[in-house]
Amino acid sequence: MDLISTLGLAAACFTTAAFVPQAYKTIKTKSTRGLSAGTYALFFLGTMLWLVYGIYIKDLPIILANSITASLAAIILYLILTIKPKPD
Amino acid sequence: MDLISTLGLAAACFTTAAFVPQAYKTIKTKSTRGLSAGTYALFFLGTMLWLVYGIYIKDLPIILANSITASLAAIILYLILTIKPKPD
Repeated sequence: MDLISTLGLAAACFTTAAFVPQAYKTIKTKSTRGLSAGTYALFFLGTMLWLVYGIYIKDLPIILANSITASLAAIILYLILTIKPKPD
Repeated sequence: MDLISTLGLAAACFTTAAFVPQAYKTIKTKSTRGLSAGTYALFFLGTMLWLVYGIYIKDLPIILANSITASLAAIILYLILTIKPKPD
């Protein structure tokens, strides 16, 4: 694999894995007060569009990365919408 | 512009703009308790790698989208690291 593909793959891995700590922290602490539902709704929509885009152009890395990221964003969004933030 | 490019552009806009609500909410509420520093550190690194990748392949949309997203991720990470979360 050449340098540029390696760079793209590393970038995809980082931006995909990035949401694992947030999903883990939110599940564990049940603390959603600081989280923005708007961010995770937009991000979920965006990654779904990337998923459709990847399917259209038959690009496996884009399909894989965005199906993982969309699932993580959906989990976090679900937690934000279902967990009642503790009062201040 | 054909359908596929429009799809890619829309996806990039959504996943870029997604972090504006989180940056706005964190700046306004100064509430960072539920936020994961790990997520924003990984995401910042990932978007910086995408930025280098975009420069390498001379792809303006990738450069634009990821410089905006990296800046938003950096702002949120800075706030997480500098704002002391209120005790429970």
